[in-house]
Amino acid sequence: MGKGIFITFEGGEGCGKTSHIAALAEYLRARGRERVVTREPGGTPLSEKIRALLLHDKEGEGMSARAEILLFEAARAQHVDGLIKPALAAGKCVLSDRFFDSTTAYQGAARKLDLDEVKSLNAFAAAGLEPDLTIVLDIRAADGLARAGLRDGNAADRMGSERAEFYESVRSAFLRLASENPERFAVVDASGSKEETFAKVVEAVERKGLAKCRT
Amino acid sequence: MGKGIFITFEGGEGCGKTSHIAALAEYLRARGRERVVTREPGGTPLSEKIRALLLHDKEGEGMSARAEILLFEAARAQHVDGLIKPALAAGKCVLSDRFFDSTTAYQGAARKLDLDEVKSLNAFAAAGLEPDLTIVLDIRAADGLARAGLRDGNAADRMGSERAEFYESVRSAFLRLASENPERFAVVDASGSKEETFAKVVEAVERKGLAKCRT
Repeated sequence: MGKGIFITFEGGEGCGKTSHIAALAEYLRARGRERVVTREPGGTPLSEKIRALLLHDKEGEGMSARAEILLFEAARAQHVDGLIKPALAAGKCVLSDRFFDSTTAYQGAARKLDLDEVKSLNAFAAAGLEPDLTIVLDIRAADGLARAGLRDGNAADRMGSERAEFYESVRSAFLRLASENPERFAVVDASGSKEETFAKVVEAVERKGLAKCRT
Repeated sequence: MGKGIFITFEGGEGCGKTSHIAALAEYLRARGRERVVTREPGGTPLSEKIRALLLHDKEGEGMSARAEILLFEAARAQHVDGLIKPALAAGKCVLSDRFFDSTTAYQGAARKLDLDEVKSLNAFAAAGLEPDLTIVLDIRAADGLARAGLRDGNAADRMGSERAEFYESVRSAFLRLASENPERFAVVDASGSKEETFAKVVEAVERKGLAKCRT
């Protein structure tokens, strides 16, 4: 039983994370790899309940910025201990739609909280775990939001209703994180066709040595 | 409009927090003081939802120790920003059934997490806010559990089903916190009658200068 591989997908609204994760899972399945597809916030029953509090808070009481990040981190801690670490220990490929870089990028864009505090909360929640590979699907915020509009219709959850300017600064935050951690990150241009983009996703994954996954 | 006063009540199961808080609220009302009675985890709609996740997690997935403390801190951050700070700014007396000392004491007893990390999470969630007075209702753990058994019948929530030995170490943790912060804490012997104990509660509150509350 080998050590698994932990791949996270990051990017703004409409960058195509969901469909590229599904395509990569199929690519891995066809090669006999065991894989787990998951997402943040979420991935376990408790973490999905926390996700519901984060995305659909209907009370209108106004969520404190500190309460919000602590809920993200609580969902992450449960996700890491209850799903990601056991799957990696069993040698599986874990594909997660977002992980702690989203928290850093969104907070960096929103600038509500000190980034050193954010990084220390991320490290606490992940118990030191880091992805083996983080794929940023990079697209202009305006293009991504247009795609998301096509995809979600008139979806109006709390996180999805922010402005294009905000998402452009989220995009910058992901690119900055990638430049600071070049060995972990792969920035993939997601402006072309799905096929073109997926070829680049596969190339980044193969460079990381899929052979480490249990067959 | 003066600055309010923030009083927290701490202690193990069956120490009488709920009834002494109600009695103190009535004492303050009779003297024309504006007061807010609240509790942790809880106190706002979002925080009460988080409380429900903490106390009645029925999924059986096994809550990660880090997820648990992050949920407590998320509920606290919302409680501080949404209820406690606005009430204090309006000059009210805020009486809370538990606050961050419970997190420290329970974690100190459970020894799952590093206490420096717990204290730093407490400070982050409370945004630097500290109680003006923390009353520990002190009682032998076995006596408190017997009272709680009378009070709750066969209550079996997740937090209430721990052992007497564990609660004795929670008690020690509260006493240690009180000895480390003598200016903030008042340890009240809660083994006597309700009337005897309440007289000591009032004495501790009056020493702190109730005149600071808006009349």
